[in-house]
Amino acid sequence: MGQTLTEKILSDHLVDGELETGEEIGIEIDQVLTQDTTGTLVWLQFEALELDEVQTEIAAQYCDHQTYQFDFKNTDDHRFLRSAAGTFGAHFSRPGNGICHNVHKENFAAPGKTLLGSDSHTPTPGGLGQLAIGAGGLDVAVAMGGGAYYIEMPEVVNVHLEGELPEWASAKDVALEMLRRLSVKGGVGKIFEYTGPGVENLTVPERTTITNLGTELGATTSIFPTDEKTEDYLARQGREDVYQELTPDEDAEYDDQLTIDLSDLEPLIAKPSMPDNVVPVREVAGTSVEQVMIGSCTNGGYEDILPSAKMLEGREVDKKTEMIIAPGSKQASEILARQGWTAELMAAGVNFSEATCGACIGIGHVPASDSVSLRTFNRNFEGRSGIEDDNVYLCSPEVATAAAIAGEIVDPRDLADELGDMEAPGVELPDKYDGAKTDLIAPDEAVDDDLVKGPNIGDVPLKDELEATLEGPALLKMEDNITTDHIIPATQDILMYRSNIPKLSEFTLSRVDDTFAQRSLDSDGGFLVAGENYGQGSSREHAALCPMFLGIQGVFAQSFARIHKANLFNFGLIPLTIDEETYEQFEQGDDIEIVDDVAEAVRSGQEEFTVRVNDDWEFTAHLDASEREREILADGGKLPHTKKKAEGGSGAAPADD
Amino acid sequence: MGQTLTEKILSDHLVDGELETGEEIGIEIDQVLTQDTTGTLVWLQFEALELDEVQTEIAAQYCDHQTYQFDFKNTDDHRFLRSAAGTFGAHFSRPGNGICHNVHKENFAAPGKTLLGSDSHTPTPGGLGQLAIGAGGLDVAVAMGGGAYYIEMPEVVNVHLEGELPEWASAKDVALEMLRRLSVKGGVGKIFEYTGPGVENLTVPERTTITNLGTELGATTSIFPTDEKTEDYLARQGREDVYQELTPDEDAEYDDQLTIDLSDLEPLIAKPSMPDNVVPVREVAGTSVEQVMIGSCTNGGYEDILPSAKMLEGREVDKKTEMIIAPGSKQASEILARQGWTAELMAAGVNFSEATCGACIGIGHVPASDSVSLRTFNRNFEGRSGIEDDNVYLCSPEVATAAAIAGEIVDPRDLADELGDMEAPGVELPDKYDGAKTDLIAPDEAVDDDLVKGPNIGDVPLKDELEATLEGPALLKMEDNITTDHIIPATQDILMYRSNIPKLSEFTLSRVDDTFAQRSLDSDGGFLVAGENYGQGSSREHAALCPMFLGIQGVFAQSFARIHKANLFNFGLIPLTIDEETYEQFEQGDDIEIVDDVAEAVRSGQEEFTVRVNDDWEFTAHLDASEREREILADGGKLPHTKKKAEGGSGAAPADD
Repeated sequence: MGQTLTEKILSDHLVDGELETGEEIGIEIDQVLTQDTTGTLVWLQFEALELDEVQTEIAAQYCDHQTYQFDFKNTDDHRFLRSAAGTFGAHFSRPGNGICHNVHKENFAAPGKTLLGSDSHTPTPGGLGQLAIGAGGLDVAVAMGGGAYYIEMPEVVNVHLEGELPEWASAKDVALEMLRRLSVKGGVGKIFEYTGPGVENLTVPERTTITNLGTELGATTSIFPTDEKTEDYLARQGREDVYQELTPDEDAEYDDQLTIDLSDLEPLIAKPSMPDNVVPVREVAGTSVEQVMIGSCTNGGYEDILPSAKMLEGREVDKKTEMIIAPGSKQASEILARQGWTAELMAAGVNFSEATCGACIGIGHVPASDSVSLRTFNRNFEGRSGIEDDNVYLCSPEVATAAAIAGEIVDPRDLADELGDMEAPGVELPDKYDGAKTDLIAPDEAVDDDLVKGPNIGDVPLKDELEATLEGPALLKMEDNITTDHIIPATQDILMYRSNIPKLSEFTLSRVDDTFAQRSLDSDGGFLVAGENYGQGSSREHAALCPMFLGIQGVFAQSFARIHKANLFNFGLIPLTIDEETYEQFEQGDDIEIVDDVAEAVRSGQEEFTVRVNDDWEFTAHLDASEREREILADGGKLPHTKKKAEGGSGAAPADD
Repeated sequence: MGQTLTEKILSDHLVDGELETGEEIGIEIDQVLTQDTTGTLVWLQFEALELDEVQTEIAAQYCDHQTYQFDFKNTDDHRFLRSAAGTFGAHFSRPGNGICHNVHKENFAAPGKTLLGSDSHTPTPGGLGQLAIGAGGLDVAVAMGGGAYYIEMPEVVNVHLEGELPEWASAKDVALEMLRRLSVKGGVGKIFEYTGPGVENLTVPERTTITNLGTELGATTSIFPTDEKTEDYLARQGREDVYQELTPDEDAEYDDQLTIDLSDLEPLIAKPSMPDNVVPVREVAGTSVEQVMIGSCTNGGYEDILPSAKMLEGREVDKKTEMIIAPGSKQASEILARQGWTAELMAAGVNFSEATCGACIGIGHVPASDSVSLRTFNRNFEGRSGIEDDNVYLCSPEVATAAAIAGEIVDPRDLADELGDMEAPGVELPDKYDGAKTDLIAPDEAVDDDLVKGPNIGDVPLKDELEATLEGPALLKMEDNITTDHIIPATQDILMYRSNIPKLSEFTLSRVDDTFAQRSLDSDGGFLVAGENYGQGSSREHAALCPMFLGIQGVFAQSFARIHKANLFNFGLIPLTIDEETYEQFEQGDDIEIVDDVAEAVRSGQEEFTVRVNDDWEFTAHLDASEREREILADGGKLPHTKKKAEGGSGAAPADD
């Protein structure tokens, strides 16, 4: 039986398990990337693992979220990251050099290689045949130390592309069509493998827009085969040496398949406030627009901004509309400036910002109240732009630019008809991506050989091994669907404490009960109780780390979100499932005691635990965990677990974890 | 007797008083400018005055401080300002179009005209013969309504310039030399008039750097005569029609005189944390530098960035130093981009930001802790960069760029010697300032004809006429030297409430006593008690407005800072002077009653007031106020005063106030 492209790359990197859908596999990681809001913790964990040097072929630290450096804590974080990259042997990309996914694509992405990144849009370079997966920071730290990455083997779904995009339709519309059809949950547990005759009609930057947005489907990753276009792109980046031909076998078998005929597509737009709320642009034409933003890892490249520049040449942004371009990378900025397009865009009324992804998560250029913002970004979750009740639409650069010219949403085909002299810009690559690389500091150019920690940068707290006896009060009883945003909010004033766990922990669950953090610290241990789907949303590991810091020992919930459950194991908190009746019977403040010898039970594979409440009533809770997860939990979390294994082994993090 | 240049312009605009040093004069205002952190209140006050239309020749609203729009409140402020400019007939400069002083210089500044601006660096266009003065927002609102501006006639000091600047010395060094000689208090109550043969050796942009920094001397304003260079500059801006020759009479008499021989100057630098802490650059050479910033209204022009670009051509920013350029205007950005310099600077490792002055007041690019930042800005007060205990040095673009290349402070002459091939860049003007003006919306292009107020934009509270009886508790007793930063802090989290007085008032004096605001609201009126020099520092009128909103009726202090005292009159709070013995005897919480009929006494010119404390002891307090100030105070502040006079008069704010 032939192999899919995914299977080929995974086979090459498999160190544990078998490629059976749903089975846990361990894979070797060739490259890692991290950024400034997750990276500080990655390096603090790398330090806590007592590792000396990065073991992957490439490790790259980017500064892209907080480049405006609103607070000295942001600037201190950047300096710490530079020092960590220098000390441990990673590439360091200075603030202003661009978004991790863009800069990585330009400089390091390589067909057939595995990439693990502590950012959810890590799958971007799937567009040139790299198998790239987003993960929690601790997984990235372990991978950097040479450890394998563990994951349940996803389903592989074939997306068969036919035809060619018509004028004014774009790669963004392919991705929006996927979201329209499959919804934001449609990719959970899946890898999308794009094939078919339509592939050769898409440039590499278009392919990476599509793989980037696979994240919004919930997919593990998305990937394209490689071809002449891939080789050509890499050659223009001066990196043709990393090219290799990679295609699925003709008789490869997929778990599922769908077909998109590119020639059927038209300009689409995701209405507020979900990326899958997709309609044809014409359906919302006439909506007044106050802000247009072009940028982000999705559509912030040279190839995305050039169409906008061509459309605006000799034209003006509407007087009531603010248009901001935040390029995805300095390479893009520099080439656009060198070609004269930057001056043209400025003349047209565009406000050119730094190369940053900040606005996409509400850092800068927050929309006005009760206003419409059109963005070429990837997410329009309510409030993500920095204001509650926002009205953010997601679309292609062409649709965004048409709105900037008209001051209202308009299908660019209709605007072109109206104006008479506006050509469809198409997608064009520069002859040579010749931007300077002065802001990318290679390990052998490093300026630091020691960590530089400002006063806001603490250590990573470590947990002891799981004890035999677990007892304490139910410190907080919560409803269904508590998100990681509830557990650790991501707003600006809190975000800057991501490298200061004691301070960050003060905000734990403050959106549910602002007395919780102090009560937890005052208590000698304790538990959380929740309904269904506890820990959904962002993968941030702080949502497990901070409760751990506060002394929380475990969580009783009717069900857990997948990534958060993994994070609970990773930080040594026992996640126990309870039934609805038990949930109802629980009251906040109840005294809880797990009757079993917990440490022993976890290690031995025991699934049912007897729990006594208030010395009055008992119930049974369930632990659903793999052997690997049980070891991690019993050792007090992945950090002490990895450390323990390394001490017993070769001195570095072992390849089998 | 001949006239100084200052006297010539003032004579042309005098509507009240005589040009005697120290006497109060009223002058007609031709142009006003305002920016986004002071402008919202200006327009709310304009609205409260029930005025329909701007009466000055030019009124311009700029958005330059908060262009990063960290919060929707910032974006809402910008939208409100656009709507106010459109509704009332002012020019509107969109966020991203540049700093008020730069854009005003480019588009509106004109020799012989008067300009009043709600920003302390308003004197900038003095470099092309305009008499430009910074003032509180309410004064600007009244001037926009056609009212005169009142000021004590300053001393006029002649600064006689000789010679020519040597290579690597710059206009910034002229200004730093002034600060070195005179200190930050050396210009209080003075206008500096630059004359002599050295003038013709300075371009207009160099002259405006010097007049801009006159603010740091505490001067009322600074001014240059006009000449061929002025005419040439205006012609390159396409505005030669506003040129007029303006020079002092040969027999003009000055209150004082000093001489600077330009050829004696060398690269200077102001060390932390005061602009007059000036030494030759060589004295601090070797200091490691982590951040270099070029920009601000002082040195953010095309002519300031071009030298930096020439120095960096083919070179690189040191790997451990971050260099950020925030151009002063989009005109500068666009010309630099068109000429290819932007691409060169990016290639060298510069992070190009928006055209904004934000970082100068700690909005964005806050330095890392325990690090050195070299900036071409105008102020390095401790903490102003956004971090306490900062180490900010002020210098020319040439000195800043040399440090960026070397990674440490170095005299550019020494760096040039070391490198061997770095020429002194000199100052060069473009043939034509041909940046587009799409972001400057003229009154006849306005997109709004109604005010757009987001939920954070309130009304201006109005006070009733002064009452006969003033009594209440001493709500707060403070030390000497309480600054307006103590009264209303300017940090980010508070700044965004500048157009929401009820919310902003919650922070009143919170740095002294965080229970004060609530205690004031709970009390039915009351007083403040302070030592010497109450209200020093920034001119922000919120420091009087917010206590007024909280119900404070007056302030007893040993002495008052000049501008804050004027603001107390403007918002209807009586400022009474007490002696040290009385100050010592006062206790917080004492019950205070002014025995006289206060309204009557203020209007009649009474200077001594009898005050009873706790029905137990009495003292005498003094009111030092002009007749005009007494009328304003008695009417409940300048806003009701102006309104009252307008109602009794022509329907617009009368020219005699």
